[in-house]
Amino acid sequence: MPTYRATISVTLRPSILDPEGKAVHQALQNLGHTTVDDVRVGKRIELTIEAEDKDTAYDVAETSCQKVLANPVTENYEISITAASPSAA
Amino acid sequence: MPTYRATISVTLRPSILDPEGKAVHQALQNLGHTTVDDVRVGKRIELTIEAEDKDTAYDVAETSCQKVLANPVTENYEISITAASPSAA
Repeated sequence: MPTYRATISVTLRPSILDPEGKAVHQALQNLGHTTVDDVRVGKRIELTIEAEDKDTAYDVAETSCQKVLANPVTENYEISITAASPSAA
Repeated sequence: MPTYRATISVTLRPSILDPEGKAVHQALQNLGHTTVDDVRVGKRIELTIEAEDKDTAYDVAETSCQKVLANPVTENYEISITAASPSAA
């Protein structure tokens, strides 16, 4: 069966405070990077999925986001699917 | 000064074990997503940078990666810069 790679970006919704981003921002300021105005930290997840076609792979990735990878109350997700095996299109 | 947005993906090098990815993989298997073969979890960081031009913004993002955001021994990073204010090009 063809293999697809799903690249998923999980980011905090803009209205949610991001303490990890704040900490990184402070660290950068302390190192002299005063031109950095804002930092947001999220997750980037790569799934390797065996599927008949791209749409099926997308569905698997989306269900995974909804059930495991993202918290729908505080986070947004974005999915992009690319072919990972020569037989995938 | 123009504002740029740097989107940075920090991923574990392929040779490095990823216990968080393994845990997510196991969770997906338990939920019946047996077509997911592999999971890798990384970070996605967005920096908002004030800079004269795109190249300067890229340099700030790259130095930030080397000093704070990524561990050069175990992680790779990828930077993409987009204009965030109308005056940026």
